[in-house]
Amino acid sequence: MSLPSVQEKGSNQYQFLNEEDIIHYVKKHGFFREDEPVSVIEISDGKINHVYRLTGEGKTLIYKQAVPYARTVGETMPLPLDRVRVEARVLQEYDRILPGSAPKVLLLDENMAILITEDMSPMQVGRTALIHGAEPAGFTKDVAEFSAQTLFYTSDYYLDPMVKKELNASLMNPGMRQLTEELVFDRPFQFHESNYFEAGLKNDVLFLSQDQKLKKEVAKLKHKFMTKADALIHSDLHSGAIFVSEDKTVVFDTEFACFGPFGFDMAHFIANLFINGIGSPQYEYKRYEQARETWYAFSAKFSELWRNESNEAYTQIDGYLTDLLEEIFSDMLGYAGCEMIRRAIGIAQIDDLNHEQDEQKRMERRRKTVELGKYLIMERSKIRSLEELENWFR
Amino acid sequence: MSLPSVQEKGSNQYQFLNEEDIIHYVKKHGFFREDEPVSVIEISDGKINHVYRLTGEGKTLIYKQAVPYARTVGETMPLPLDRVRVEARVLQEYDRILPGSAPKVLLLDENMAILITEDMSPMQVGRTALIHGAEPAGFTKDVAEFSAQTLFYTSDYYLDPMVKKELNASLMNPGMRQLTEELVFDRPFQFHESNYFEAGLKNDVLFLSQDQKLKKEVAKLKHKFMTKADALIHSDLHSGAIFVSEDKTVVFDTEFACFGPFGFDMAHFIANLFINGIGSPQYEYKRYEQARETWYAFSAKFSELWRNESNEAYTQIDGYLTDLLEEIFSDMLGYAGCEMIRRAIGIAQIDDLNHEQDEQKRMERRRKTVELGKYLIMERSKIRSLEELENWFR
Repeated sequence: MSLPSVQEKGSNQYQFLNEEDIIHYVKKHGFFREDEPVSVIEISDGKINHVYRLTGEGKTLIYKQAVPYARTVGETMPLPLDRVRVEARVLQEYDRILPGSAPKVLLLDENMAILITEDMSPMQVGRTALIHGAEPAGFTKDVAEFSAQTLFYTSDYYLDPMVKKELNASLMNPGMRQLTEELVFDRPFQFHESNYFEAGLKNDVLFLSQDQKLKKEVAKLKHKFMTKADALIHSDLHSGAIFVSEDKTVVFDTEFACFGPFGFDMAHFIANLFINGIGSPQYEYKRYEQARETWYAFSAKFSELWRNESNEAYTQIDGYLTDLLEEIFSDMLGYAGCEMIRRAIGIAQIDDLNHEQDEQKRMERRRKTVELGKYLIMERSKIRSLEELENWFR
Repeated sequence: MSLPSVQEKGSNQYQFLNEEDIIHYVKKHGFFREDEPVSVIEISDGKINHVYRLTGEGKTLIYKQAVPYARTVGETMPLPLDRVRVEARVLQEYDRILPGSAPKVLLLDENMAILITEDMSPMQVGRTALIHGAEPAGFTKDVAEFSAQTLFYTSDYYLDPMVKKELNASLMNPGMRQLTEELVFDRPFQFHESNYFEAGLKNDVLFLSQDQKLKKEVAKLKHKFMTKADALIHSDLHSGAIFVSEDKTVVFDTEFACFGPFGFDMAHFIANLFINGIGSPQYEYKRYEQARETWYAFSAKFSELWRNESNEAYTQIDGYLTDLLEEIFSDMLGYAGCEMIRRAIGIAQIDDLNHEQDEQKRMERRRKTVELGKYLIMERSKIRSLEELENWFR
């Protein structure tokens, strides 16, 4: 796999480029003719990076530059520029494992923390599609099979153990992982000032920080996230990191990627289906059905790869796969619970819960999201199938 | 921490040094005077590396050079020269965490894969002391507390998460880990040609390779070893990697070190106590008592550090420590079982089982080692304390 990469002499210094600089930069690198009119439109949500769509005559591309902190928080939350290298490397890895499953990387400039990729428009962002009830039918199955494949092919059941450990070392991504550790596993359970909720939920959020049994389970899930390197995970596979259309599904925003527990990505995906359903009662049961479809499609694909593609002799032992899927399922529920709680009351808010104008309704939905999250965390080893959750979605 | 290190211009090429070259090399680096008579005596067991004691006038030191394969197997088992860097780095880390717990590193030459360390003589190797029933009283407690401290201080309960992940990446040590994966977890359960046992044990060894329930559990332990980065582990902490004397205990041979599961090192240590006891019935009950002492000293020290030194807020949650110690205990039993089986019938044989001249007795001891190993693997989650094992040692 060859990575288009720029390492120019004399341009080793990071500097943030404004819109005029950007046009100069991309023309210098031959993406547009020198005399070609190019428009620059910012399309990022403004939380972490600066992302622009560049449009010339008959060509568009996506230009992303990182700043050394999270935009949404400011310079008090430093973030490594190296996340752009990780993002590019993982997009390429995904595209290699499942061609077309990630935008093509057109340029990576590590020193400048600039990444230029294929523009996936007019594909829609999954979250937007879900909020409008306009998601394509094949979407959940695509994500499930994408996840099964990218996990299996980067796990010790397939990869050469030497190659896997080297890939793990090169994608250690400690700075971005720390953000997940803090925002997903710590702050929502600390009555932290950065949490976000209606005043009427104050006690709910306070009780989260006082629930010792819950916090013990969150602590275990956090530690497993920090220490278990099952496979390359996206680490932030919510519906806002997925482009959808009728004929394909494309995963992006891989800057949080690292080696982590098998169940983590499916957790984030189904958690965001659940949240969307709670936030839009007319879709609630459908989201539950989609979560079920997701899990069964994931386990079918993972099992198929296990049987046909494994390089680990122990995968031939009868019963091992079932035990592993049980662990993945239980982890998935636990991590889904954490994601639901942090999306409900943490700093990284999403529209699914916030588009409702009626405060009382919004509050009740936020509370239900928290309660289901707690239930999933506490009962993750006892729940035998997603069907047992049906009553939460009626 | 500054590491004495040599990176000379023009000497970047690895070459294996003979005894004459060695004397020239150490004099050039100022360890001895140019006209000083220096004797070179090989002291390695010949399994993996070349190790020499160099003695001048009033000074001795240990010189070790790696070859790019395992000596005992030959060039068909390539091993990375980088293991010498890992060994030096980890010796220094141990000495930093618990001063005096590892030999001082005097020189590391990464290109030449040469490591020069302090000579710990006249300390005895732990295995030799155990075989002769001459181990110092404080030995097991020292090892337990060494392990508790080196694990805790390199875990996410103490270390900054960024620092820990960077240390993990720099000590990924994939080549040496692969050796463990293969020799500890694969070959003993494959009726492999490299296994070693008396003809009368052929069926015992064959049945190991046909025991599907056992192999499923070994598979899980192997995968956890490959994927769980709880803390910096020695990875080969048997009694032959420990120097003992009445007043101190020193750990060496850290070339297998990596980040791994908490329970791994204690497993290897108690497994080798058990094996020694089975191999020398007059010490059998004592070895069981020492294993108990080891576990209780380990958990006492680990708990003390958890309470007083932790930087992870979740360690304040009541009950979390007990759950973690339970997991460590269960992993310890499982990995001890694997170590017992591979030492009994695998390629890396030890004197504890082989010093007996009577073939029938030797065979029975080897079989008992295998049987206890199987029991520990299968029952690791059900055994509540080492006291439940007492009948194995009467």
